[in-house]
Amino acid sequence: MSSVRNAEIIAIGSELLTPLRSDTNSLHITRRLNEVGIEVRRKTVVGDALDDLTDAVAGAMARADLVITMGGLGPTEDDRTREAVGRATGRSFVRSEEWVDSMKDRFARAGRSLGENNLRQADILEGAELLTNPKGTAPGQWLPGRCSILMLPGPPRELKPLFDGEGMARIAPLAAGTGRVLTRILRITGMTESHADSLVGPIYRDLVNPSVTILSSPGSIELHLRAVGEGVRTAEELIAGVEAQFREKLGERVYGTDDESLETVVARMLLAAKQTIATAESCTGGLLAGRLTEIPGSSNYFLRGFVCYTNESKVDELGVPAELIAAHGAVSADVAGSMGAGARRIAAADLGVSITGIAGPTGGSAEKPVGLVYISVADRAGVVTTENRFPGERGVVRFQATQRALDMIRMRLMEGSG
Amino acid sequence: MSSVRNAEIIAIGSELLTPLRSDTNSLHITRRLNEVGIEVRRKTVVGDALDDLTDAVAGAMARADLVITMGGLGPTEDDRTREAVGRATGRSFVRSEEWVDSMKDRFARAGRSLGENNLRQADILEGAELLTNPKGTAPGQWLPGRCSILMLPGPPRELKPLFDGEGMARIAPLAAGTGRVLTRILRITGMTESHADSLVGPIYRDLVNPSVTILSSPGSIELHLRAVGEGVRTAEELIAGVEAQFREKLGERVYGTDDESLETVVARMLLAAKQTIATAESCTGGLLAGRLTEIPGSSNYFLRGFVCYTNESKVDELGVPAELIAAHGAVSADVAGSMGAGARRIAAADLGVSITGIAGPTGGSAEKPVGLVYISVADRAGVVTTENRFPGERGVVRFQATQRALDMIRMRLMEGSG
Repeated sequence: MSSVRNAEIIAIGSELLTPLRSDTNSLHITRRLNEVGIEVRRKTVVGDALDDLTDAVAGAMARADLVITMGGLGPTEDDRTREAVGRATGRSFVRSEEWVDSMKDRFARAGRSLGENNLRQADILEGAELLTNPKGTAPGQWLPGRCSILMLPGPPRELKPLFDGEGMARIAPLAAGTGRVLTRILRITGMTESHADSLVGPIYRDLVNPSVTILSSPGSIELHLRAVGEGVRTAEELIAGVEAQFREKLGERVYGTDDESLETVVARMLLAAKQTIATAESCTGGLLAGRLTEIPGSSNYFLRGFVCYTNESKVDELGVPAELIAAHGAVSADVAGSMGAGARRIAAADLGVSITGIAGPTGGSAEKPVGLVYISVADRAGVVTTENRFPGERGVVRFQATQRALDMIRMRLMEGSG
Repeated sequence: MSSVRNAEIIAIGSELLTPLRSDTNSLHITRRLNEVGIEVRRKTVVGDALDDLTDAVAGAMARADLVITMGGLGPTEDDRTREAVGRATGRSFVRSEEWVDSMKDRFARAGRSLGENNLRQADILEGAELLTNPKGTAPGQWLPGRCSILMLPGPPRELKPLFDGEGMARIAPLAAGTGRVLTRILRITGMTESHADSLVGPIYRDLVNPSVTILSSPGSIELHLRAVGEGVRTAEELIAGVEAQFREKLGERVYGTDDESLETVVARMLLAAKQTIATAESCTGGLLAGRLTEIPGSSNYFLRGFVCYTNESKVDELGVPAELIAAHGAVSADVAGSMGAGARRIAAADLGVSITGIAGPTGGSAEKPVGLVYISVADRAGVVTTENRFPGERGVVRFQATQRALDMIRMRLMEGSG
């Protein structure tokens, strides 16, 4: 039984090879393994065919220190993981009478009798340890060795407690321990990927530890830092050093870390500043209000929202002068400003935020193309309006508009109350 | 170049081996391959290390008729897919001057000059065909053979058009075509999974072709049918027979098929019936309006939306009598009805839809627990209100509320205009 530095994860089940389902269990397992310094080197998804399965297990065993299988431990003919691991390791099985009894009890309580098929679930690999599964009839199995093997049932509600408890209790002591792996995400908005990369690229380009990946999608950039503790420097220290350099370059463009959403950050700032807010939306159709109210306790800062698709509603609900719309069009800086100020005034809020634009795919013109969006933030000092041109399809334009609006609120709150 | 029956997909990138990201591109590719009768036998995720990558490609080539790689074609040192496939196939590279020129043009238009690194992106495997990528600087590559290889860039917005167009144009003619695989999803809302299963379970329990899987999440049930054409019966016929039986049992609970969302279906019905709509939302905070305006052309039916978090705003904006709120509370059937009727009247819409409830986690009481939500649809004939108790966390309660509201609109429109 050697120390474990790396692992492979095998997800088993033909349904995972359809267009309809993907493996997500492995993300949870990866997080836990990384925490004790074990790196996941490969993930494989295979179906229920015994040869494919055996080949996948044998291949992984030849490469990794630890192989974790997920699924294929059920009672049916399609559940071949036990058999595949038996073949790959050249081991036979011992039926656990204890587990047979435990299944009998479970079935009796449900008023059913144990089927012949279920007995296979008590077949434990020679030399392996049975790991009790409190949530189902498929126990886990743990076979320590040059390459250790952990077999887990597939359903997340069975897999997670079994892995976190019995599984990690056996894996953690074997972890090479040379380095806890830590990941950190810095979340950025309001700049392009190439701009961000030009600022931070020189810092991370040749870095190995932490390794840095830049991921971008419209309205959002993520810098992923991944450090492995080495020698006297912990993963935390390695991350902190680079994070500080990134923050110095990116400044206020970093709005949050890890799983933090922009609305979470804005909500926290609104609460801290004891500011209330109202929204007036045209092309985003309520999505900005939806994001602002995503946060528990949002009734402490969110007062009202207006979704004003028609010109008439902008006049009626927000008090936008009809002449303003006639002169500049509903998609204009002037109307955006008037909408924001109107929402603020009518809701008696500290801040009024408005969005008006052309989300597409139709409605654009040469002068006002699809993607043109005006966003205003009104407060007692006045109105700030931005003109934006967002690329992409309707949904992408709408998301970017809410993202920019939230970021403008954030900037406004960072300045302090005017 | 032999006929293609099965494929393996390799997703490349160290970020896909972290707890933070998973491969989703392969679902799209699987769907397209299945449509021409090609089965995906294995999916692999590997990092950027050249040896791992080469080993994964060589292993897949030994097993499959077709190998599709995704990612690792960028300009940086981390992008090793070209090199790995070169090693696995024993081939060298030819630089495509044509692609170099195309990159130069692209960079010039963006006001930048081409870096030395980018030149590597024009390195095409000996004997392979360059597949033009209109969305980026990484072209695809197609190498037909005993095991054909398709290399695709990783970003979904580049991968999908390239695969659907140039990629499938080369793969489809090679497909063995013995059994076209077809998947069909029936989408259901407004009933529990166990109720749905009690209705359709007896039909599908022992079916093998099509195989049927039932997937459920709060507010939504999906029946997944997957058929493989056999003998004289096409996959379409196999699906159609079972789908008809399902529809007979489930009736109007089936709102759509495949990728259709509930808002798409409702939008289509609103347009067909030439009906306009206005919304009044409390706990869902604009999400219902957001979903109704997700659809291009929504300005033809959506007039205005009100997000009325405070009691005051319900009175001011929607004309809800203050006494009604005082007597029944803001979360009550009476207030919901008054909100819906108010939105309809003020917007001069055919339909007014309202939602008021307790999304949680706080704000619940013994009498009015978290998850209690009243939803009303008002039309000229009057108001229909439902009382709902949705399980789950804040976001889940909010989603279910919008789902139920859309379904109530759908039911209303199925009845015809009153």
